[in-house]
Amino acid sequence: MPEINPQRLMDDLRHLRTIGKYGTGVVRPAFSTKDMEARQWLLDRMEEAGLRANIDGVGNVFGRSQNPGRGVLLGSHTDTQPQGGWLDGSLGVIYGLEIARSCAEDRRTVHFAVDVASWSDEEGTYMGMLGSRSFCDMLDPDDMERAQNHQTAQPLSAAIEQAGLTGIQTVKLDPDRYTAYLEAHIEQGPHLDARGTLLGVVTAIVGIRTFKLTFKGQQNHAGTTPMAYRKDAGVALMEVAHVINREFPTLAGSRTVWTIGHVRLEPGSPSVVPGHAELLLQFRDTDELILDALESKTAHIVQEAYERGPVEVGLEAVFPRIVPAAMDGTVQECLAAAAETHAPAKWIRMPSGAGHDAQILAQCLPTGMLFIPSIGGISHDIAEDTAEKDIVRGCRALATATETLLRQTNPV
Amino acid sequence: MPEINPQRLMDDLRHLRTIGKYGTGVVRPAFSTKDMEARQWLLDRMEEAGLRANIDGVGNVFGRSQNPGRGVLLGSHTDTQPQGGWLDGSLGVIYGLEIARSCAEDRRTVHFAVDVASWSDEEGTYMGMLGSRSFCDMLDPDDMERAQNHQTAQPLSAAIEQAGLTGIQTVKLDPDRYTAYLEAHIEQGPHLDARGTLLGVVTAIVGIRTFKLTFKGQQNHAGTTPMAYRKDAGVALMEVAHVINREFPTLAGSRTVWTIGHVRLEPGSPSVVPGHAELLLQFRDTDELILDALESKTAHIVQEAYERGPVEVGLEAVFPRIVPAAMDGTVQECLAAAAETHAPAKWIRMPSGAGHDAQILAQCLPTGMLFIPSIGGISHDIAEDTAEKDIVRGCRALATATETLLRQTNPV
Repeated sequence: MPEINPQRLMDDLRHLRTIGKYGTGVVRPAFSTKDMEARQWLLDRMEEAGLRANIDGVGNVFGRSQNPGRGVLLGSHTDTQPQGGWLDGSLGVIYGLEIARSCAEDRRTVHFAVDVASWSDEEGTYMGMLGSRSFCDMLDPDDMERAQNHQTAQPLSAAIEQAGLTGIQTVKLDPDRYTAYLEAHIEQGPHLDARGTLLGVVTAIVGIRTFKLTFKGQQNHAGTTPMAYRKDAGVALMEVAHVINREFPTLAGSRTVWTIGHVRLEPGSPSVVPGHAELLLQFRDTDELILDALESKTAHIVQEAYERGPVEVGLEAVFPRIVPAAMDGTVQECLAAAAETHAPAKWIRMPSGAGHDAQILAQCLPTGMLFIPSIGGISHDIAEDTAEKDIVRGCRALATATETLLRQTNPV
Repeated sequence: MPEINPQRLMDDLRHLRTIGKYGTGVVRPAFSTKDMEARQWLLDRMEEAGLRANIDGVGNVFGRSQNPGRGVLLGSHTDTQPQGGWLDGSLGVIYGLEIARSCAEDRRTVHFAVDVASWSDEEGTYMGMLGSRSFCDMLDPDDMERAQNHQTAQPLSAAIEQAGLTGIQTVKLDPDRYTAYLEAHIEQGPHLDARGTLLGVVTAIVGIRTFKLTFKGQQNHAGTTPMAYRKDAGVALMEVAHVINREFPTLAGSRTVWTIGHVRLEPGSPSVVPGHAELLLQFRDTDELILDALESKTAHIVQEAYERGPVEVGLEAVFPRIVPAAMDGTVQECLAAAAETHAPAKWIRMPSGAGHDAQILAQCLPTGMLFIPSIGGISHDIAEDTAEKDIVRGCRALATATETLLRQTNPV
């Protein structure tokens, strides 16, 4: 197997961490100056590694091996959350770069095609998984048109123009080129770290459904309006939230999660009966049947509340529904074998509760994911971290799986 | 009894409505240009009516009769909510002005002292009931120092300076001067309008207690954090709110009201488990024992939630506690007799669910309040309105009560 260079791997990860450094974390949201600086730096590293590299019209950095044949595509993303950790995304990209370099340095693997991608805006500053969607030709022009920065309201097209990418072609998937797409990532959850396991072979990425529940009552004076006269949108919201939290466990699987992450009461004054209220409810599972059951239950709870009155309750899906993405069986077996080599009996199979570009690629290519531990399960936070030996082990395991896949489809 | 002039009354109310006109409502928050313009206009009207008028150092407009003897003080406020109705406050001030004029025009009442006040910032743009608190010498200098505009963060002292009032003396109550303080107001609730009753004699003004409940959990990724690992501040909040709404009815009186008017989850993202949450809970009653019981229950619910975990729950009182204010018995009887004269069998005794300057004055003077109907119970909204005949009837009843009180303490 190709020997990765741990020092070079860590040096690159640490250098990338300096671009947009924010305490122990990184601020490099999609299309920001720092994001583009990191992408240019990556492009230079790819060229040094002998890849033909370019930035495409949506910000993807793509490094293509000059070797012919069926290759492996390795990638993740270098954009971050508004205040993100240093490994989320960057890890998978630098793994790809290091594995491409290692393969090129070894005479037994020098002829293999290892391509590397850093997808654009995985974190959804403008549109989640923009780059991988573009690569897989799964972008709806209307969605592109509507996409904007949630905080600044800047349209995606303006961000692309500001980044100097207007008019540049986008790179599209050539399916004949690849045996598989592989993405490594920190787990972002507590499972590996809590059990002392070292690697996770992902079985599937969860589907996500998000709903907005709206409550329309009657705004009124909180001192003079008797309880019996009120149409309090906030009271109706609390009751529906309570029923959701009471009923969902009866339908949930062992890995199902649901979250009410946002609530708003209007006008939001202590002396005014809320006339309008809303909440966002999101649930995730790898099993569509469970997602269906939770959606039906939500509709039922809303209908019951509507019929009970006096507040009108409405339900709408707010974000594009994300379907569960099963990882490819053969690719999983390669990753499992590599995990057993590098962490004997200390790896598990597990679903991914977070979304990843791999769920887009999985719709077009045999795809697999490998997780390494997140200390304390912390992610989307500047405190996110992983031990160096775990980082190096993960890269070695991914290199082994990459080589296995390449050998299977490129007979000597 | 003095004959009020309905045309003059309505003309003044309608003129006042034009100062800061906003649709069918008025925008005249305390110390704004329009508030000061209205106060100057009122001062001129008072001078025309033969009162010695001035604006004091906190913005009170005070018109003092030149007659000696024990008089009656009539008042309310001319400042408004951010988008207020045309009658809230203005009604009681213009009633006062009209009754002072009517008394002065009638040889049987010309010798009586009727003083009129428009208190400053009743609505709490900077500090609720600022003017009446100042008049009754109930202002804490520290509170004055801290007071600021909730929206602009402008300190009260800066607003006073901008209004040109810095260094002007404040008018203080001379308790020997008055037999009583009377304030008329629209009901701001549905009771009179819904029953077809025409006048309300206020028995007491509710006490108000407001609490902030805080929930401290652990912010985390909504996809990768298993339900059993979560410390979801939002879930804890919903549960506590549910228990409040379930338990409070068992302790409430027939007029008790409670409101959760404000809720916040942080960071407020659909994909993040809330790490922090808070709500504002307010309850009102005229009975301190009920307020005590609700406060104990709230503390108990919070303590139970804290012990249940895993989220830390805290409770703190946020605004100065407002104690219930009973209206003076003798004054109530005068108002009741006047109500029976002008609306035979079509008046009721009732508490006030809203706060009024009268609750401050009641701590220093025999005080009474008279309510007229609010159409649909609507208030703190530009749609606020009352039929002209109800406005005129209210002024007549207040004039009658005023004269009765003056005759009782000023023997012929």
